[in-house]
Amino acid sequence: MENTKQQSWRSKLHDIIYEADTPAGKLFDVILLIAIIASIILVMLESIKSFDEKYHTFLNVSEWIITILFSIEYIARIITVKKPYKYIFSFYGIIDLLSTIPKYISLLFGGIHALAALRALRLLRVFRILKLARYLGASNLLMSAIKSSRAKISVFLFAVLILCIIFGTLMYLIEGEESGFSSIPVSVYWCIVTLTTVGFGDIAPVTPLGQFIAALIMILGYGIIAVPTGIVSAEYTAQGKDKNNNDVTNPELNSKSCENCLAENHKDKADFCYNCGEKLHI
Amino acid sequence: MENTKQQSWRSKLHDIIYEADTPAGKLFDVILLIAIIASIILVMLESIKSFDEKYHTFLNVSEWIITILFSIEYIARIITVKKPYKYIFSFYGIIDLLSTIPKYISLLFGGIHALAALRALRLLRVFRILKLARYLGASNLLMSAIKSSRAKISVFLFAVLILCIIFGTLMYLIEGEESGFSSIPVSVYWCIVTLTTVGFGDIAPVTPLGQFIAALIMILGYGIIAVPTGIVSAEYTAQGKDKNNNDVTNPELNSKSCENCLAENHKDKADFCYNCGEKLHI
Amino acid sequence: MENTKQQSWRSKLHDIIYEADTPAGKLFDVILLIAIIASIILVMLESIKSFDEKYHTFLNVSEWIITILFSIEYIARIITVKKPYKYIFSFYGIIDLLSTIPKYISLLFGGIHALAALRALRLLRVFRILKLARYLGASNLLMSAIKSSRAKISVFLFAVLILCIIFGTLMYLIEGEESGFSSIPVSVYWCIVTLTTVGFGDIAPVTPLGQFIAALIMILGYGIIAVPTGIVSAEYTAQGKDKNNNDVTNPELNSKSCENCLAENHKDKADFCYNCGEKLHI
Amino acid sequence: MENTKQQSWRSKLHDIIYEADTPAGKLFDVILLIAIIASIILVMLESIKSFDEKYHTFLNVSEWIITILFSIEYIARIITVKKPYKYIFSFYGIIDLLSTIPKYISLLFGGIHALAALRALRLLRVFRILKLARYLGASNLLMSAIKSSRAKISVFLFAVLILCIIFGTLMYLIEGEESGFSSIPVSVYWCIVTLTTVGFGDIAPVTPLGQFIAALIMILGYGIIAVPTGIVSAEYTAQGKDKNNNDVTNPELNSKSCENCLAENHKDKADFCYNCGEKLHI
Repeated sequence: MENTKQQSWRSKLHDIIYEADTPAGKLFDVILLIAIIASIILVMLESIKSFDEKYHTFLNVSEWIITILFSIEYIARIITVKKPYKYIFSFYGIIDLLSTIPKYISLLFGGIHALAALRALRLLRVFRILKLARYLGASNLLMSAIKSSRAKISVFLFAVLILCIIFGTLMYLIEGEESGFSSIPVSVYWCIVTLTTVGFGDIAPVTPLGQFIAALIMILGYGIIAVPTGIVSAEYTAQGKDKNNNDVTNPELNSKSCENCLAENHKDKADFCYNCGEKLHI
Repeated sequence: MENTKQQSWRSKLHDIIYEADTPAGKLFDVILLIAIIASIILVMLESIKSFDEKYHTFLNVSEWIITILFSIEYIARIITVKKPYKYIFSFYGIIDLLSTIPKYISLLFGGIHALAALRALRLLRVFRILKLARYLGASNLLMSAIKSSRAKISVFLFAVLILCIIFGTLMYLIEGEESGFSSIPVSVYWCIVTLTTVGFGDIAPVTPLGQFIAALIMILGYGIIAVPTGIVSAEYTAQGKDKNNNDVTNPELNSKSCENCLAENHKDKADFCYNCGEKLHI
Repeated sequence: MENTKQQSWRSKLHDIIYEADTPAGKLFDVILLIAIIASIILVMLESIKSFDEKYHTFLNVSEWIITILFSIEYIARIITVKKPYKYIFSFYGIIDLLSTIPKYISLLFGGIHALAALRALRLLRVFRILKLARYLGASNLLMSAIKSSRAKISVFLFAVLILCIIFGTLMYLIEGEESGFSSIPVSVYWCIVTLTTVGFGDIAPVTPLGQFIAALIMILGYGIIAVPTGIVSAEYTAQGKDKNNNDVTNPELNSKSCENCLAENHKDKADFCYNCGEKLHI
Repeated sequence: MENTKQQSWRSKLHDIIYEADTPAGKLFDVILLIAIIASIILVMLESIKSFDEKYHTFLNVSEWIITILFSIEYIARIITVKKPYKYIFSFYGIIDLLSTIPKYISLLFGGIHALAALRALRLLRVFRILKLARYLGASNLLMSAIKSSRAKISVFLFAVLILCIIFGTLMYLIEGEESGFSSIPVSVYWCIVTLTTVGFGDIAPVTPLGQFIAALIMILGYGIIAVPTGIVSAEYTAQGKDKNNNDVTNPELNSKSCENCLAENHKDKADFCYNCGEKLHI
């Protein structure tokens, strides 16, 4: 009896944490969201030296609050899930642990608070932001468009990389070390900076031939940016069409449904069901 | 009788100010347009120190002319509208007031003419330019395409922000303060500058690993710019088609309907129904 | 008799210069093309000081050759055309004259050869390159896509300009003159540089708030670049459809032609001509 | 007999090198792939001075291994192919030879190992990366979209070049040599940097008029980037549709044809003709 009650309490907590349909589940989500954003802002503020010096106590207290909240969440998740090890060794489980413990470690090594490695560990909390990615899920169409064009865009980016290695080596030969093209990797880096139209200007060609090749690279980059765009455009349009196997832009398929076999998406001119051969009525 | 006459005078003025169909209304629009553009050019010129010193009297007189014109417009709008408080507290009402009063305030505090805050107030006149936004309304198709893809682009930009926070924190760890990555917010700022392919170059990675990550960010930015473009492309095409369940980009089909067989989507030049041969009436 | 012969000689020359169908006309076109490109390369080389000093005689002789060629072309065009004043005062006529005379003027004022204004006049020859624009005409589809989306892109760029003026004024207030935002026009210029993702880096925000606004502007610029792309994409697709009032993607219109009135582009399902009501045969 | 055996051995080797269907052929491909990538990494590492000094022996040994591997491949290709001269004088044949011999030449001139020309020759090995381009072939749709829009994009880039020459000359006149616009070619280079939204910032306009023209160029570049994107988008969509006169993005329609009424474009799942109700055979 006791066991059942505890079970049900655990099951309720599970619903609150892992589901978002109940009011309590929604509230939990909102609080977690705020906590994650607050923790990221804290990490950011702490990295600003002048701010850290001024408001050190405030930052310290806030970090403890966030750390305790995250600890409770972490423990609750382990308790309520059926196979705890599965959560613990999942991507988010590891991120959750790593973003929670640094503050506790700083307790143990309190004297050497400013230890760089510890600061770095605390920065891992930033990865908690990935949890927000869940809220992006709303736009499935967008996601599936990206997914289905991922392969083609990878091929494209691979081609871009090949181009950058060749042009980078060329620029290393032409410009040499005086202009900042100190090695081939640096030249390839410069080439990527240029082809993607970023153009920092920390390295820039100075010889006429170098500037000519640079102009070529830029125009190339300006022209081929059209390729991934064209891919995503087409895939996105295609995704929109696939959605319910029907499409506004394909007037050939209509919404008639066969009375005999209930098949849908007949061709517009269809007089007979493509599935059972029954005469169609409009 | 007097009242009616005044009413009619007020009503006429209302039409001139708020409508653009009558010749007087069009003239008012053109004068207002010129006054707004002139006021913005004045604000710009005044901010150039060397110009302000040379032509101070000219700028001062011009500002007074603009201010008086704007005052008249503001008062006329209040008088002629039925519910003045609604205009006064509307967005444009506040902008109109704030862009008119600074010159009057400078009268009261004439001795401290160069007061920075007053200069700043006068800059609010720039927001008057938003009134010009009305002239953008012509392209409804464009507006509705942007509107319907706004949600998806927001999701996309939110995903970009998450990426920038993670990569920014990474670059802060890798590059450190010597390279200009002095804090996480600055690193995130640099990451946005890089991912959006702007690339100021005021901060640039110097370590090989930093340059490698930077190259990754650039290629990512170069690749994913395709996503919002694909969205708008698809939405824009969809908008054009949805308009009257008819392709707006195919002006050949019209919305006439046959009186005999009710067939629709006749060609624009069609005199007879393509379905039953009945004469079409427009 | 003499007159007729001369007339015919003139008419032949006219065909050579203004038509491109005959072998002689094609040859003339090719020679003119080479002469224009050569003249532009000359103008470019002359502007490089070290080159000009070294090869001054070569450049001078080449310029005379080009000038004489252009003079002959200019005179031939005036002689052969029926209404010479129409050519002389046309855009290309003025460009042709202005790009030919500077060398003759330099003869008159030989002593002051290095006169800056004369150098500038010679640069006008660059506009001859516009004549090459004729060879771009091949891709009519592209041109008409740009033309039909020109209005919408103008509206878009006007909206971008409004944004830049507002954000520019804001940055002027936030950053001030110490960071290089010395006046509103300069700030607006910086804003355009940033929004269009060019990012020179000659001016860059240094205050945290300024960098935050800058990040906003960049993300905005990165997001809205999708708008003109979407417009051209859609228009280009639409243009492809309009071409012969028929379209692969619009299977509704077919290539049947009415036997009675020869009207074409009937709807696919049409049984009767939309023009005369005649029964259609497939 | 001996001859036949050798022939068969040669034929087998040919299959391994030139075909990728057999396990041995696949293995050869993978090893070659790794060797090419390793050789490129070696070339890159060698160009980093500090690395070259530290690990000179390691780099030297690795280069010898790669060189010997490439030599074996080169000889094997010559032996097994039927018309060796055809391979030797092919593009890849020349690249293979040039990327193999530099190390042997360095043996002959061992004393002057650091000879710059030899280093440069070794860099040719980078072109071996083009062999990887074969692995890009997977996305035929993408390739044919680029191919069919190549002509239009060339026209576009040519128009961009004309614009850059005119604006470059203009900027040279306006800004002059003090601002870094030292000659017309440099100004044209700057104009390309700006129009393609790269924006290094090594040269930047300083006069108000120059900044105004620069702003124009940027907005132009920001606007017309839509053109190549629109082209590729449209072509890519068209390619997808042309494939088998059927929409590749609409996998629902197949190429079956009804035996009774010859109707085509049946739905993929269709068992009966939509036109006459006849049973369909695959």
